[in-house]
Amino acid sequence: MNAGGGRTGHRGPRFNGRVPGRATPSLPLLADPAVAGLTVTDPDILAGHVRDWTGRHVGSSPAMLRPSTVAEVAACVAACHRTATAVVPQGGNTGLVAGATPLGGEVLLHLGRLAGVEDADADAGTLVVRSGTTLADVQAAARAIGWEYGVDLAARDSATIGGTVATNAGGLHVVRHGDTRAQLLGVEAVLADGTLVGDLRGLRKDNTGYHLPGLLAGSEGTLAVVTRVALRLVTPVQDRAVALIALDDVASAVRAAGALRRSLPDLSAVELLLADGLALVQRTHGLAPPFADPSPAVLLVEVAGAPGVVDRLGAAVEGIDGVGDAVVAADPARRAALWRYREVQTEAIARVGVAHKLDVTLPAARLAAFAESVRADVLGRWPDAAVWLFGHAGDGNVHVNVTGVPAPVDGEDGVDGVDDLVLRRVAAMGGSISAEHGIGRAKVRWLHLNRTPSELAAMRRLKLALDPLGILNPGALLPPT
Amino acid sequence: MNAGGGRTGHRGPRFNGRVPGRATPSLPLLADPAVAGLTVTDPDILAGHVRDWTGRHVGSSPAMLRPSTVAEVAACVAACHRTATAVVPQGGNTGLVAGATPLGGEVLLHLGRLAGVEDADADAGTLVVRSGTTLADVQAAARAIGWEYGVDLAARDSATIGGTVATNAGGLHVVRHGDTRAQLLGVEAVLADGTLVGDLRGLRKDNTGYHLPGLLAGSEGTLAVVTRVALRLVTPVQDRAVALIALDDVASAVRAAGALRRSLPDLSAVELLLADGLALVQRTHGLAPPFADPSPAVLLVEVAGAPGVVDRLGAAVEGIDGVGDAVVAADPARRAALWRYREVQTEAIARVGVAHKLDVTLPAARLAAFAESVRADVLGRWPDAAVWLFGHAGDGNVHVNVTGVPAPVDGEDGVDGVDDLVLRRVAAMGGSISAEHGIGRAKVRWLHLNRTPSELAAMRRLKLALDPLGILNPGALLPPT
Repeated sequence: MNAGGGRTGHRGPRFNGRVPGRATPSLPLLADPAVAGLTVTDPDILAGHVRDWTGRHVGSSPAMLRPSTVAEVAACVAACHRTATAVVPQGGNTGLVAGATPLGGEVLLHLGRLAGVEDADADAGTLVVRSGTTLADVQAAARAIGWEYGVDLAARDSATIGGTVATNAGGLHVVRHGDTRAQLLGVEAVLADGTLVGDLRGLRKDNTGYHLPGLLAGSEGTLAVVTRVALRLVTPVQDRAVALIALDDVASAVRAAGALRRSLPDLSAVELLLADGLALVQRTHGLAPPFADPSPAVLLVEVAGAPGVVDRLGAAVEGIDGVGDAVVAADPARRAALWRYREVQTEAIARVGVAHKLDVTLPAARLAAFAESVRADVLGRWPDAAVWLFGHAGDGNVHVNVTGVPAPVDGEDGVDGVDDLVLRRVAAMGGSISAEHGIGRAKVRWLHLNRTPSELAAMRRLKLALDPLGILNPGALLPPT
Repeated sequence: MNAGGGRTGHRGPRFNGRVPGRATPSLPLLADPAVAGLTVTDPDILAGHVRDWTGRHVGSSPAMLRPSTVAEVAACVAACHRTATAVVPQGGNTGLVAGATPLGGEVLLHLGRLAGVEDADADAGTLVVRSGTTLADVQAAARAIGWEYGVDLAARDSATIGGTVATNAGGLHVVRHGDTRAQLLGVEAVLADGTLVGDLRGLRKDNTGYHLPGLLAGSEGTLAVVTRVALRLVTPVQDRAVALIALDDVASAVRAAGALRRSLPDLSAVELLLADGLALVQRTHGLAPPFADPSPAVLLVEVAGAPGVVDRLGAAVEGIDGVGDAVVAADPARRAALWRYREVQTEAIARVGVAHKLDVTLPAARLAAFAESVRADVLGRWPDAAVWLFGHAGDGNVHVNVTGVPAPVDGEDGVDGVDDLVLRRVAAMGGSISAEHGIGRAKVRWLHLNRTPSELAAMRRLKLALDPLGILNPGALLPPT
């Protein structure tokens, strides 16, 4: 993720929003009455918004618009359209691919003030929320009416629901409830010309034309600005059990993950850990060895659903071929202890060194071969590097961390050599270069590895259809032509 | 559904595909070498394809193209594009809104020969199938590797998977597994100019640009022709239980449905029946009264999942406020007996008379008020009519059947007055005029009730972006400008 975007800057066309450093009277947008009272140009306030939270990607912006109603968002976008001003929508600024960072000097459209839950329907199991509402507030609103929201991720206290729609956020429970797109019963959004489209009726069945939630989820603010969403909620967990299962190799772990998904309807997590990662967390965090003998691959499995999960999980684990050893935990303290092997992976790796972090998906059938290849690739080129691999085996989504290689290593134009090597290997094996973080500006140079020229052309035609001036989040998602 | 489309014909622009009756040498497409050997012009064969299966909508076509490989589909569509020939894609021809009927005399593109399962991955829980494969064959292929496909509907033996993608088919298990869109891990499709886009890697997490499955599901063949799909599969059912629950009124039934969804993670159906419909099936099919006293509203509930469902269902039913009486069944014969009250509704209504059939969704909070209003609306205008209402209470999706009113009743241009009245009431109460059948040609005149002019304009821009000549399924989904 230490990609070139932040170092090499925006390569697309320049817009008149690009006035580096601070606002100047020459920006026509700022003279538009529609944005009067909604504009911030104080460099101290802007400073926290023109860079991503990691600090790796730093842009600049002449001004930030801060609407707090849907009508104000529409007015702001319409004013940008009238004045042909490029604008970068921003929610909680917790993204990992610089999708909300104004690297081209664009105006910022901050959605954080458009917050709040407008409707919570316990009978229907739905919420209607404004896009600037944090994920944590959405989760709390769901719990308050006896339901749960199906998506959870580490940035829940800052990430906004609108941002999770724009990036189609995944998180911990995709294996059970699907990604953010799967939670959307309706989306309301402002198109590039300021017109409002979509609905918030929260209907579970509605086949009346092209599906706006399906198109906008994952479009990273390049097609429209999401203002409100209608969300489906999921049945709360009644009982929970966790198991740690020792397996001979990654291929066995993939097969076991398939068998567990096939036999446990309420499976809620299937995480893969490898021997070196487990040894690492024992060293860095003083965790006890989970099994008497170290195991090449370990699955952490959680079942969460109707009562009786611990018996069902125990029976399912016994039914798997090739399990060396296994622990099943029902009580909260034991469950937490098992989860800890997985949860401290990132922190443990950080203690080894600054990591190149890639978030990718492989087809189940290629995951084992990928684990071997990517290690061989990296060590072949950087013999002192270490490759750490863990992730959501139930989704084929693995986190590849590489330590021991300073970034950027080589390549012209500041391209991170590790990222380049890993992403090319992923694509060559039929995988996705971005499982859940999106493309943003950081990965845009590699999108061609996953999308054919025909597909990129089709995406550009869709973009042009809805945003003919190209004012919405230029530089993100679509490579420059 | 006896909508105007079939009687009033196609109102959009005329294309040179429109050569009524039979092929003539003047159709440039037929001279294109790309379609040589793939073309059928025999009127006897065409006759079964130019009308929908109900016989209500009858069109005409000069020729039908029958490709059997992806490359042949691409070649056919490219040839249509070169010759500016309008083309109507057709799968199993089981649709209910004339979405695959050439009412404008278009050429037909039959996908039935592009059939077969290409890949079935038991570890990943995925299938890759060609679009002409029937739903029944998809279900069988899933079962053969120890999984299930999440969508089921009555036309399973004829309906093709491509048709279910085009219409985003729903069916019996939406409350549990979602609609067809939710099953799509990947789609491969031919754009209007013949280029192939999409992928079949079957990845569960992939955020690399605009989401083709999200856009194409429900687009009714107007944006691209689906050639193959990668499908996610679901955990097979291990145990099943069914309950019939007596309630005081529709509002109580809606509240009970919400409570059941909130407490039963493996709820797989929540169907609503009303007193008159239950009395009818006792009369027409000799079924015994389900309860000692007739009940104004009845929920049929099925739970299907991990072992122990009958106890969980029993406990959940006991926990619901206002339940008058209830029966819970675990053994297959008893379960089937309870389902029969629901399953024979359509057949029983058909014995009363030819019904106007509407498939709509209401917000949960308005379902009870809708049930009253629609009855009052219809009886106020046609005092001898009968209004039958039943459906999927878990989704807010109700089937409205009206008997005792010949169609069309009145209105200029042959518009069905019952359909018009019911759909306007649905839209006025925040509902969807098409829950799961789509818009096709039969409902296109009412789409404006659910979509604003801005939304229709945005849809048209998307259509123009991907199909600038307007050759793909003209007259379906989008109203004429």
